[in-house]
Amino acid sequence: MARPKVGLICGSRSDLAVLAKAEKQLKNFGIDYELTVASAHRTPKKVTAYARAAEQKYDLIIAAAGLAAALPGVVAAHTALPVIGVPIHSPGLSGHDALFSIVQMPPGVPVASVAIDGGRNAAILAAQILALKYPELRAKLKRLKKEMTKGR
Amino acid sequence: MARPKVGLICGSRSDLAVLAKAEKQLKNFGIDYELTVASAHRTPKKVTAYARAAEQKYDLIIAAAGLAAALPGVVAAHTALPVIGVPIHSPGLSGHDALFSIVQMPPGVPVASVAIDGGRNAAILAAQILALKYPELRAKLKRLKKEMTKGR
Amino acid sequence: MARPKVGLICGSRSDLAVLAKAEKQLKNFGIDYELTVASAHRTPKKVTAYARAAEQKYDLIIAAAGLAAALPGVVAAHTALPVIGVPIHSPGLSGHDALFSIVQMPPGVPVASVAIDGGRNAAILAAQILALKYPELRAKLKRLKKEMTKGR
Amino acid sequence: MARPKVGLICGSRSDLAVLAKAEKQLKNFGIDYELTVASAHRTPKKVTAYARAAEQKYDLIIAAAGLAAALPGVVAAHTALPVIGVPIHSPGLSGHDALFSIVQMPPGVPVASVAIDGGRNAAILAAQILALKYPELRAKLKRLKKEMTKGR
Amino acid sequence: MARPKVGLICGSRSDLAVLAKAEKQLKNFGIDYELTVASAHRTPKKVTAYARAAEQKYDLIIAAAGLAAALPGVVAAHTALPVIGVPIHSPGLSGHDALFSIVQMPPGVPVASVAIDGGRNAAILAAQILALKYPELRAKLKRLKKEMTKGR
Amino acid sequence: MARPKVGLICGSRSDLAVLAKAEKQLKNFGIDYELTVASAHRTPKKVTAYARAAEQKYDLIIAAAGLAAALPGVVAAHTALPVIGVPIHSPGLSGHDALFSIVQMPPGVPVASVAIDGGRNAAILAAQILALKYPELRAKLKRLKKEMTKGR
Amino acid sequence: MARPKVGLICGSRSDLAVLAKAEKQLKNFGIDYELTVASAHRTPKKVTAYARAAEQKYDLIIAAAGLAAALPGVVAAHTALPVIGVPIHSPGLSGHDALFSIVQMPPGVPVASVAIDGGRNAAILAAQILALKYPELRAKLKRLKKEMTKGR
Amino acid sequence: MARPKVGLICGSRSDLAVLAKAEKQLKNFGIDYELTVASAHRTPKKVTAYARAAEQKYDLIIAAAGLAAALPGVVAAHTALPVIGVPIHSPGLSGHDALFSIVQMPPGVPVASVAIDGGRNAAILAAQILALKYPELRAKLKRLKKEMTKGR
Repeated sequence: MARPKVGLICGSRSDLAVLAKAEKQLKNFGIDYELTVASAHRTPKKVTAYARAAEQKYDLIIAAAGLAAALPGVVAAHTALPVIGVPIHSPGLSGHDALFSIVQMPPGVPVASVAIDGGRNAAILAAQILALKYPELRAKLKRLKKEMTKGR
Repeated sequence: MARPKVGLICGSRSDLAVLAKAEKQLKNFGIDYELTVASAHRTPKKVTAYARAAEQKYDLIIAAAGLAAALPGVVAAHTALPVIGVPIHSPGLSGHDALFSIVQMPPGVPVASVAIDGGRNAAILAAQILALKYPELRAKLKRLKKEMTKGR
Repeated sequence: MARPKVGLICGSRSDLAVLAKAEKQLKNFGIDYELTVASAHRTPKKVTAYARAAEQKYDLIIAAAGLAAALPGVVAAHTALPVIGVPIHSPGLSGHDALFSIVQMPPGVPVASVAIDGGRNAAILAAQILALKYPELRAKLKRLKKEMTKGR
Repeated sequence: MARPKVGLICGSRSDLAVLAKAEKQLKNFGIDYELTVASAHRTPKKVTAYARAAEQKYDLIIAAAGLAAALPGVVAAHTALPVIGVPIHSPGLSGHDALFSIVQMPPGVPVASVAIDGGRNAAILAAQILALKYPELRAKLKRLKKEMTKGR
Repeated sequence: MARPKVGLICGSRSDLAVLAKAEKQLKNFGIDYELTVASAHRTPKKVTAYARAAEQKYDLIIAAAGLAAALPGVVAAHTALPVIGVPIHSPGLSGHDALFSIVQMPPGVPVASVAIDGGRNAAILAAQILALKYPELRAKLKRLKKEMTKGR
Repeated sequence: MARPKVGLICGSRSDLAVLAKAEKQLKNFGIDYELTVASAHRTPKKVTAYARAAEQKYDLIIAAAGLAAALPGVVAAHTALPVIGVPIHSPGLSGHDALFSIVQMPPGVPVASVAIDGGRNAAILAAQILALKYPELRAKLKRLKKEMTKGR
Repeated sequence: MARPKVGLICGSRSDLAVLAKAEKQLKNFGIDYELTVASAHRTPKKVTAYARAAEQKYDLIIAAAGLAAALPGVVAAHTALPVIGVPIHSPGLSGHDALFSIVQMPPGVPVASVAIDGGRNAAILAAQILALKYPELRAKLKRLKKEMTKGR
Repeated sequence: MARPKVGLICGSRSDLAVLAKAEKQLKNFGIDYELTVASAHRTPKKVTAYARAAEQKYDLIIAAAGLAAALPGVVAAHTALPVIGVPIHSPGLSGHDALFSIVQMPPGVPVASVAIDGGRNAAILAAQILALKYPELRAKLKRLKKEMTKGR
């Protein structure tokens, strides 16, 4: 049977820490993912190729980026898959730059932005979306919701 | 055969203009929706009941709110469905308040934020998500992408 | 004779440090309080139950939260008690997010916001409010005002 | 029997429009109020005299101000009554200045800030506070909460 | 003899007003230009093709965009020509979004940002750059500097 | 012969580090000063008395404050002396709060704001102002300007 | 007998409206002034000459500017006279740009910033400063303070 | 044969770290540069002389500055060479001040702003501009673009 698959992408190795929180949560859900480092600005052909091939390989994409964070929007430009954007905090402008660059997409090409450094929530949102196609994920999401009500 | 269904919700009648852009785009895609006005702050029981029943009725939810825009997050708190949040611009603070209130969700409960007043993009993101379950939407999304390449 | 009682609530154990400043000041005033950890987003039923039962137990509520700080507003939605909100600083956006999420409440459902990380002031404001019902607090508040004029 | 009384104060005649929303709501609740125009910067003696005499006359104070909105804090400096601050929007800086000037009070002297231009919420918060001393207000607040659940 | 040539590009017809100020100034300098409407998000292939062919046709590029203004950066990703970015003001976030999206480029791929709605300055900066290759422009720039000292 | 005299005032002992930079520079200029710690919010009578007596004792006042930095404005409200305000940085809101609270004074009561944590510049501005009355300071200011041109 | 004299300068004819408020107030005080339009960026030699000659002609300078408002700082760089800066509001960035450009001067060269569009306060601050040298102004300032206590 | 030459200038020795990134990249490209420390505010004559002589010595200028970062604009005021501005981060206001002071230049006198602390990108932009006159740089820029596609 088909299994959900997520494409994880970030623009630079220094962004991997934020995606690590997404990876951990995806593993928890038993969702396969593939991690790619490619930059909308430094390796644009790789990003374009990645985004155009994405539909063959993934159900959705999580893209993390900082500064003038064009990556999620550029990926979204080339695919009809849902793209979740994770803005990454940096010292100058405290993350305002990445947040605004990701969330303020023009009409026609949405990106689903989560919180600054919100890698874990990107993975949970991915599972919520994937649950439409893979109903077994719904139970896992409910278990997560239940777990959140304990331990506190 | 099952048809996709979206729950559209906003906190106040004055927010309907922003959702109208979502409605128009959903109609374009042939996606059914149901429109509800309920406020996380003024009619919280209605919102809670709405969110708890949502899974029976909808595939996903689009929630628009301004100011201390708690609605999308509160809906997300009560359901495992994907929730798309639309921050609404208001004069004081120019929409910073609604954007931050919607996008900065804590770990565990994501909201997928689109741009300020981004009703249309909320609907397109909804279609991208629904396409996982209703593959006929993918063709419509591709047609939209193609149309965007014309007329400009 | 009746004694004043304050409900202290925050969304996460990591927020307790900010509330500790409120606790210390409440103890100073001899005001009873009860501390609860519950999240508007992760444990919404607990928050709703808490807020609905609050009138039986408390005279007012102090709610602290960071990020998309919905907790004070959601508590205020379910009770007619005064709710004091304490925005908590976090690195991304330096507390702008929590402040705007708490203070920009829509017409009909106020929250009384104090400063970012202003746990102590929340407790003093609580005493000022409670002094309407428990006049013995007025003397304590005046003593505090007098003490502030010394030692500096 | 004693009746609740609120002191309404703003720094300039041009701020009266924001307080008018408070007045309307206070009248609705049947709460007496007295309106004063005095500026912490232009008529500081009047403000000091007002604040020092406030305890004899009022149960609490609502103070509205724009720009470097010192009025609520200066009133709070001279009284142990609860002080509700209403930041007023102005074109330069879109209300950020008044909000920060009112809400960021130093430890020891709180002001309860409501939203920018939030005159109506200031009055509702006042009623919630006064209800501790004048229990008949609680019923009115509940009626307001109930009314908010209708008409929408 | 070779003549300078500038590529002018913006993401949407609604951005043309800002570029009109650049066009007028370029005409003043006698610099040829070609105007293209293409969006990094809606017509990404057109933008990529444009940027890759740019070196054959232009000496430099002026790219104007609003919101999550990815266009200048995406063009810069595909060419070694200098790219001047013009952030465009929009009501939500007052242009902070476009400015941050354009100026905060990651190391390796610069964009030369001018002021919000700074179409005219983009053209003057273009002339200053082109004067390195087409020295006759230097005299025109000096004449402009001289004219600016008059009439005021 | 009369000597210039500056009143230095800040709201809290924790603000003394910023004023130390002013003290050092005033000593350098040979300007007498007197240091006072008094808070517009915690010790308002002391501030009022200080400001009303200031004209007898000082030629001008330098007032430093953080957060809802009312001190400079409140001093200015009670005296016709020039008041220089020094906003102090604090973690939440990175000094935006103190800056806006000090600089956005309403018409009628100015404060001369210098940069965040700008204690040294406050002292130099004081000397520039005092030089109108004590011309010997002009030579010292020119020497400072000359020194700045060296060593770099 | 010597009379006080103020140099008023702004960067562009479109800034004259803000300075008109200063002119009116200076006339009220009977303070002579001279109005100059010169831009730190477009007519830098004129500004430098102006600033260097200022000490011969003026007691102090009021400089108004918008956007990257370098004028007050550049004037201050060339003179030891006190320089009052007036930030001017513009649509993009709502005046944050002019305020930060004027107030955040580096150590060694202060500018006394007043509020955004604060032309009138610039004139009152000028009178407060000039009163050190021209004591007859003190009485006028006190009269102004007294007038402010009436009519409200 | 002529060689490209860049003028590097910053306002203070503490800014040299940001320019070091530019120097390293310029060396990489084999572009000669000359480093000057001069402040628009503290050593304005040196800056003016520098800017006026620049055309004899340099092809373009890179100017880095923090706070009220007037240096790039003041240099641009005195030369028709392209001026690249590098805003420098400082704790208060997190770099918003330097960015706005550099990028928001008025019509007539552009500065090409790069990212906060973007020293390396300033050098790459310089090379892109210089390549118009020194075509051998184009190959080096293409090599850099190619290198960026590896190692990641």
